[in-house]
Amino acid sequence: MIREIERISSDIIKTFRAKEGINHLSGPNLPSRQSVIDIIATLESIIFPGFQENEFLDEEYISFNIGEKLLKAGQSLICEIGKSLNCRSNPCKDEDEKSNDSEATELTFQFLNSLPVIRELAVKDVNAALKGDPAAKSREEVILSYPGLEAVTVHRMAHELYRMDVPLIPRMMNEYIHRKTGIDIHPGASIGESFFIDHGTGVVIGETTIIGKNCKIYQGVTLGALSVKKEEANVKRHPTLEDNVTIYSGATILGGNTVIGKNTVIGGNLWVTSSIPEDSIVYNRPAEFVLKNRYAGQNDS
Amino acid sequence: MIREIERISSDIIKTFRAKEGINHLSGPNLPSRQSVIDIIATLESIIFPGFQENEFLDEEYISFNIGEKLLKAGQSLICEIGKSLNCRSNPCKDEDEKSNDSEATELTFQFLNSLPVIRELAVKDVNAALKGDPAAKSREEVILSYPGLEAVTVHRMAHELYRMDVPLIPRMMNEYIHRKTGIDIHPGASIGESFFIDHGTGVVIGETTIIGKNCKIYQGVTLGALSVKKEEANVKRHPTLEDNVTIYSGATILGGNTVIGKNTVIGGNLWVTSSIPEDSIVYNRPAEFVLKNRYAGQNDS
Amino acid sequence: MIREIERISSDIIKTFRAKEGINHLSGPNLPSRQSVIDIIATLESIIFPGFQENEFLDEEYISFNIGEKLLKAGQSLICEIGKSLNCRSNPCKDEDEKSNDSEATELTFQFLNSLPVIRELAVKDVNAALKGDPAAKSREEVILSYPGLEAVTVHRMAHELYRMDVPLIPRMMNEYIHRKTGIDIHPGASIGESFFIDHGTGVVIGETTIIGKNCKIYQGVTLGALSVKKEEANVKRHPTLEDNVTIYSGATILGGNTVIGKNTVIGGNLWVTSSIPEDSIVYNRPAEFVLKNRYAGQNDS
Repeated sequence: MIREIERISSDIIKTFRAKEGINHLSGPNLPSRQSVIDIIATLESIIFPGFQENEFLDEEYISFNIGEKLLKAGQSLICEIGKSLNCRSNPCKDEDEKSNDSEATELTFQFLNSLPVIRELAVKDVNAALKGDPAAKSREEVILSYPGLEAVTVHRMAHELYRMDVPLIPRMMNEYIHRKTGIDIHPGASIGESFFIDHGTGVVIGETTIIGKNCKIYQGVTLGALSVKKEEANVKRHPTLEDNVTIYSGATILGGNTVIGKNTVIGGNLWVTSSIPEDSIVYNRPAEFVLKNRYAGQNDS
Repeated sequence: MIREIERISSDIIKTFRAKEGINHLSGPNLPSRQSVIDIIATLESIIFPGFQENEFLDEEYISFNIGEKLLKAGQSLICEIGKSLNCRSNPCKDEDEKSNDSEATELTFQFLNSLPVIRELAVKDVNAALKGDPAAKSREEVILSYPGLEAVTVHRMAHELYRMDVPLIPRMMNEYIHRKTGIDIHPGASIGESFFIDHGTGVVIGETTIIGKNCKIYQGVTLGALSVKKEEANVKRHPTLEDNVTIYSGATILGGNTVIGKNTVIGGNLWVTSSIPEDSIVYNRPAEFVLKNRYAGQNDS
Repeated sequence: MIREIERISSDIIKTFRAKEGINHLSGPNLPSRQSVIDIIATLESIIFPGFQENEFLDEEYISFNIGEKLLKAGQSLICEIGKSLNCRSNPCKDEDEKSNDSEATELTFQFLNSLPVIRELAVKDVNAALKGDPAAKSREEVILSYPGLEAVTVHRMAHELYRMDVPLIPRMMNEYIHRKTGIDIHPGASIGESFFIDHGTGVVIGETTIIGKNCKIYQGVTLGALSVKKEEANVKRHPTLEDNVTIYSGATILGGNTVIGKNTVIGGNLWVTSSIPEDSIVYNRPAEFVLKNRYAGQNDS
């Protein structure tokens, strides 16, 4: 058995010689997926204190608790951001480690300073869910069980890191929450306050999307690109939603010049590739489907 | 560094003063997400004994094994239901703890007594999957790998707790399985025997949906509401499927007065907002799409 | 309490008498879900060395590292495949254990020998993602965060085991990754090199699908069956995509005789049930939706 394993092992190692490698050998360490997940959990418990396991927080104890969590998340972020900065060049190359350290510390504090604002946005997102879903019974229920809230909260944190040009980590945060919730928000997307995603599975929001205040979208909505040419990576490729826009399930809105005007409602399954004026209601013409009796004639409706 | 952390911590704590809080401080403990997940795992191993890791069960040993698991799930449920009862008021408030304890015990036993019936339903759901999917090769395969079966089994348990007016926990069970499978069934939905969801990602079944016997639905099906007004939270907002209804992938059925008659088949991607008579086959008119040769003229089809 | 538990336990055990059981008692052990997950993790770290936690690999150390991982995955596979072989009969029955052991060892080595080729395919899949998504910034980003890449890599391994007629395990691998990514690829599907799935949530690829080289599909695409009759389980029920086919989000392609010709682009949300010639661009006629001002008249577009 050992000899056979040695042979297969050597066959695999031969494939490492490929010009365009997928082996990360002798290079700098990459950010750790598990650390990124742990950082997200700590940050979520700062945003929503008292909702985690085995936490009983009173108002006196809370300042120690928040301080301790900030320190823990901060130290871990300095370490992971430090590793990620090696990937500003492509492929990743060891940079001068000392300079990375101080830059990583600076970026981490810049990020932590955004948390009070993110908390205020989270309050508004919770209220948007409570208002937007007849089935929502309490703030506790929303915080404990709404995947859309968790996806948007993690997005707001990832977006801060994206704006600071931190490599890799924002996308790792986004993909962690995509896997958890089925909601895929690129960290580049800019999302206004009081945003609510209901159900959420299958939602895709592209890198250059801009969303105003008080918007609401449902499961299966795509805010995507018309062109997927690599050379257009730096152009605005995804749509803009102005304030108070609602988009029902399964609708697809495409294109960087597509603007959905304020107060507009987009019906389910709509396919939109150009701008829609403000104050509109847009829906598909009632479909002419075919209705047959299984045992007899036919009847159009 | 410490001084900086203290300043950010104090900025965050200032946001706790917001009128509509998202911090759960000095209040009663909330149900624990991890405990709810552990309870689900124990209950699943009671429903499908012998399918879990490191279990070898023979027919003599099984009665001890089931008894032990019932005791474990029961004790944990008493504890979590006790905590959830504090959330009958909104926001959650400490009630008289003693009375919660005895009520939680009573509710737990009422729930555990429903397990034999849920097991009988699980047998029928497994058979429905085996019958409904040509790719299904054995009951073992269905139990070990079909996400639709797991989502429906957990739903049947969550629905029992929902009917007993237990707060929070039914939705936490539903969201755990939503994240795991991409299938979002509100615990309020009422689902008949021999139900099969194939593939399942993106399925949404709303709170007041009623589903008859022998129904089958595919990935991306929404059974949703036409109105999302908060003041209509207590009205029937979601559709009714009578017995033997099949709904193919991506179809959307909306509205509390929409009834899909028995034996009816709804085609993929259909958008239905009013009732369909029994014994029907309904499908979209073959679409007139545009077909162009990439290099030459154009040709409609 | 104990007496009540004993009564419920006995009620549950009475349901074990059902003719069509869902209790796996006194039978052979089934493959362990956790072991299958651990095997996948080890195999992924062989395909993408250096991308896992706490690994620093240099080129000298790598041969020990790969050898050790192969040994670990191999021993575990022999054990799990051995258990799965009992399920060639339905329901599972203990076979002569010794013969299973040697057959399981043989199958395991046959599988491990396919890893160098799977690694070469993984290089091409990474490049296809980098080329196909304008938002992709580096190979590291693709490997660390693209769910489509992980789903396809695990599929390529599950497909090898499927072709060797190993029961249960290929489907368990597929369902693990379906839950993780929302991408449901049956292990029977045959997929050519340089395949890219972007976003991916809601993708379903059926058992008898055949996909050529350089294909690209987006979220919500279904490659499915027109007939779901159990007696047609052995017929080709799912479509064929020739080389260089692109299918945009939400499109549904159905039927075993449906062939999408090479170089063809299928637009979003299309519903296709018959073959499309090569070099085509196919899209839905611009929809005539209804556009109303919320406060005034009506206007069709």
